[in-house]
Amino acid sequence: MPEIRKNRVTGEFVIMAPERAKRPMDLAGTKPEAQALPEHSPTCPLCAGNEAMTPPETYRIPDPANGSWLIRCVPNKFSALSPEGELSWRTEGLRISMNGVGLHDVIIETPRHDMHTALMPVENVRNLIHTYQQRYRAFHSDPRVEQVIIFKNFGPNAGTSLEHPHSQIVGMPITPVQIKYRSDEAMRFYMDNGACLLCRTLEEEMADGRRVVFESEHFAAFIPYASLSPFHTWIFPKRHTCCFGSVSREELDDLAVVLKTVLYKLYKGIGNPDFNYSIRSSTPSEASSRHLHWYMAIIPRITKDAGFELGTGMRINPSVPEVNAEFLRGIV
Amino acid sequence: MPEIRKNRVTGEFVIMAPERAKRPMDLAGTKPEAQALPEHSPTCPLCAGNEAMTPPETYRIPDPANGSWLIRCVPNKFSALSPEGELSWRTEGLRISMNGVGLHDVIIETPRHDMHTALMPVENVRNLIHTYQQRYRAFHSDPRVEQVIIFKNFGPNAGTSLEHPHSQIVGMPITPVQIKYRSDEAMRFYMDNGACLLCRTLEEEMADGRRVVFESEHFAAFIPYASLSPFHTWIFPKRHTCCFGSVSREELDDLAVVLKTVLYKLYKGIGNPDFNYSIRSSTPSEASSRHLHWYMAIIPRITKDAGFELGTGMRINPSVPEVNAEFLRGIV
Repeated sequence: MPEIRKNRVTGEFVIMAPERAKRPMDLAGTKPEAQALPEHSPTCPLCAGNEAMTPPETYRIPDPANGSWLIRCVPNKFSALSPEGELSWRTEGLRISMNGVGLHDVIIETPRHDMHTALMPVENVRNLIHTYQQRYRAFHSDPRVEQVIIFKNFGPNAGTSLEHPHSQIVGMPITPVQIKYRSDEAMRFYMDNGACLLCRTLEEEMADGRRVVFESEHFAAFIPYASLSPFHTWIFPKRHTCCFGSVSREELDDLAVVLKTVLYKLYKGIGNPDFNYSIRSSTPSEASSRHLHWYMAIIPRITKDAGFELGTGMRINPSVPEVNAEFLRGIV
Repeated sequence: MPEIRKNRVTGEFVIMAPERAKRPMDLAGTKPEAQALPEHSPTCPLCAGNEAMTPPETYRIPDPANGSWLIRCVPNKFSALSPEGELSWRTEGLRISMNGVGLHDVIIETPRHDMHTALMPVENVRNLIHTYQQRYRAFHSDPRVEQVIIFKNFGPNAGTSLEHPHSQIVGMPITPVQIKYRSDEAMRFYMDNGACLLCRTLEEEMADGRRVVFESEHFAAFIPYASLSPFHTWIFPKRHTCCFGSVSREELDDLAVVLKTVLYKLYKGIGNPDFNYSIRSSTPSEASSRHLHWYMAIIPRITKDAGFELGTGMRINPSVPEVNAEFLRGIV
């Protein structure tokens, strides 16, 4: 019998279809090992030695060993938004538009072409997370930026064909409506319960335990009760923190371990899946809000949205969160 | 310079990125002809002669010529929802769920294995649209059903690997939250303007003309001003009608011509793309609403959602609606 579960954080119902569920290890394709990539590609603009192929860099973590770099940020050559000019809204009848002002960096995670975040040394992931925060703060220091999203696309099913390990960060001049709706949901919960919806969710998940994937001092990773797709995993900070910009160094270091661990469990457990992840955070101006709570979402790209999903906004999840979480707990 | 446009009907902003845009004909792959499929497949459960391979049929349009059938409906063997039992909600802390009660049919569009909706005789499409309405009404006559969605998945990128032409219809026991949000948007517009948002949108699109793809007596097909993806096309009825169940026979006949024409333009113009379409309708109980308006959405599956889209709910559309609409108008 299928079950409909409500995802309180996204606000949406999800059809859990266990009859359609495969065993966890059958859900992904068979891409068990990292593709054999070269350590360096002469044509890759993100590789060490090819720095002249990118726009001038906006940030770097130098490599103290050799004067080169560990991590670099550069403006995206195919930027979704333009750094030039001031925002201006235009309204003409029902047509509302504005010029696409904003910031868009590529974060080059390592000089090497052939790395996977799940297999990197943890210091590398730590540098990456610290870079996320540095760029998050820098983007928000631009007064034209209203919202910042940090994300990673890995593999063609996740929307990238670029092999070199990289993340992206976009600063937008407006607030996406989905973010507004979720904030409203969380506010409504606060007004009814005097509590943060995500803090309460995390408490319940930890007490229940069946969907927890991994836990550290400062974070818990779990598959949501109404996860939107198989192995959809959230990493929530245990401390009520709204803004990614105000996370402490110690917490960021801890997050690196949790992120690497979860990605490794997915890499090993379900055969190196294509995936996206993103960091959803309030803005610095909302940093003391009682109802907002930043978090990280990891989405292996195993299923495809079809007409049902496009026509309703609801997802059908052919898996059982409790089964998949137990499976991932067992992967070490 | 990119532009951000607001889609008033979905409520969401869309980044239009013309720098990333390709020419219309370059957007899709090169799959210009229908795959050479056999007229009949002995292993296909949807083919004529293989009726025993499906559950007992729920509806048929008989073929007067030979006592066989033109269109058949059967319950989906891999149903997302179950027709058994009564709905019951369960709440345990933050965990809200219900049993997955609902209806789910497969609509077999033709006895032949090797047809494409764009190439079918128009009588075939007319029968299909009438079947949609019959099943829509039948599904809504079940008191457990609150919302009905009719949709089609064509091709692997659209979420199906089944070659035989088919559509689907699902009756859900709840209202998807996205549908609720869009209804709220339309209600807000009505309260501000005393007018239906979709009627007003259609008026503006027809007066402007640049995004119109095709027009008939009762319908207009256009690429929305803030279309969510390349060649995303809407078909709006010109008459203010909320509910697909109350569309007249004459209008349904006309819709068949419009649907076939738009699908043919896509088939011919951008190389037989994978696509989804869906019919979004109010419920029969809302049939006299002033702010709701049923419509059809056609979405060629050309681009992929990546981390940005998953993390914000916003889309990046690497195309220019006006250019693509002009291109489609020229395809005959």
